[in-house]
Amino acid sequence: LRALEGVPEVRAGDALAELVAAAAPDDLHAGDVLVVAHKVVSKAEGRTRRLDEIVPGERARGLAASDAARGKDPRLVQAILDDSAAILRTGHGVLVCETHQGFVCANAGVDQSNTADPGELLLLPTDPDRSARELREGIGARRGVSPAVVVADSFGRAWRLGQVDVALGAAGLQPLDDWRGRRDARGRELSATVIAVADAVAAAADLARAKDSGAPVVLIRGLERFVSAEDGPGAAELRRPAGEDLFR
Amino acid sequence: LRALEGVPEVRAGDALAELVAAAAPDDLHAGDVLVVAHKVVSKAEGRTRRLDEIVPGERARGLAASDAARGKDPRLVQAILDDSAAILRTGHGVLVCETHQGFVCANAGVDQSNTADPGELLLLPTDPDRSARELREGIGARRGVSPAVVVADSFGRAWRLGQVDVALGAAGLQPLDDWRGRRDARGRELSATVIAVADAVAAAADLARAKDSGAPVVLIRGLERFVSAEDGPGAAELRRPAGEDLFR
Repeated sequence: LRALEGVPEVRAGDALAELVAAAAPDDLHAGDVLVVAHKVVSKAEGRTRRLDEIVPGERARGLAASDAARGKDPRLVQAILDDSAAILRTGHGVLVCETHQGFVCANAGVDQSNTADPGELLLLPTDPDRSARELREGIGARRGVSPAVVVADSFGRAWRLGQVDVALGAAGLQPLDDWRGRRDARGRELSATVIAVADAVAAAADLARAKDSGAPVVLIRGLERFVSAEDGPGAAELRRPAGEDLFR
Repeated sequence: LRALEGVPEVRAGDALAELVAAAAPDDLHAGDVLVVAHKVVSKAEGRTRRLDEIVPGERARGLAASDAARGKDPRLVQAILDDSAAILRTGHGVLVCETHQGFVCANAGVDQSNTADPGELLLLPTDPDRSARELREGIGARRGVSPAVVVADSFGRAWRLGQVDVALGAAGLQPLDDWRGRRDARGRELSATVIAVADAVAAAADLARAKDSGAPVVLIRGLERFVSAEDGPGAAELRRPAGEDLFR
């Protein structure tokens, strides 16, 4: 794993594929995986809102005034509500939301700290699997090889402290590795039945860069067994359907 | 990251530190991290039970007969109850438990598939941080260097399909990297405030071995910034206190 150097600050409308293609090493392989922080994807796609253009509604004002949201700006709360299909819990300064894309995460992924301007909010990509596919295609067009692409963000978890990166979007990487019914080297049925490969890849990539390095892209080698020419089902496959979820 | 070759099948009473020390490379460094699958730790510590020595009580028989547990062996359910401080949810063939160690996971981590004998159950280590410290000390005594040690297991997640490895125990590795109040390269306050380093390390390690390889130990280099001579607080620091948890 290594962070790519030389990806410049990304702005709305930038051709992100071009910036990543230029920063990728000369020996880029089709079996490589490029893990891209969602913040540069969202910026390039213009997925930002200005706080001063948001008028908070009654529900947002109520939540902002509650202990649960601990004095969040009502306009920020409105942005979170706008990106949420449902609010699962509120408390400890966090709204745990199900987003329109189907993610369950804090504050619907709306982020006030990752933009150059404190009055600007960064939202999740509208369709991160499509973002990953487009990035992959754009890199392939420029470099002649199409490594797998993962779009990652840091999510908190139930029951455990701290955040780990997960895959919001993926193209060309098998998201789940299903071992059900398969056996190990000694013929025993395997217990860890379905491995969330794309999430493990996202978590691993985060170790390859310091948070303050500003390096938004990490290259991972050695995962050829999970990389395919086809884009595949994407990280959508990692979303647990609400009907199979004991915590919704 | 690479899986260590040559770790033999582990049995109760084996000196696991000796087996790992022998399999570690000649150039083992103090800044290395060794991620050890909990199954070999539990085996070496004798954390197993025989199904035919378990008499299921009324609650276990009731759960086993319910749709929620989908025909689990009542003796297995009893073993799960014995290792649980609380049952958070039941459904889809799974009991989501809070274990006596404070982990929230499926079936209290009791595992029927990872032992040589189908009549044997594998339990979580009683104190995985202690296990990690003892392993680290034992490796240090044999090799003269004390890399960090993480004891890992695959856990399912709320909201997302598939399992990822998490750190049950750790010694010498900083479990959480706290960026609150720190700023990135461009002076902006960082959003991903507390990174669960030890969990990311566990997830990354799982990518370095095929599930059927039987390789229980993965060596990770390049994380010196998170490794210390002191054992530190251990993975206990990753357990979210129930009072701060919106999903208990």
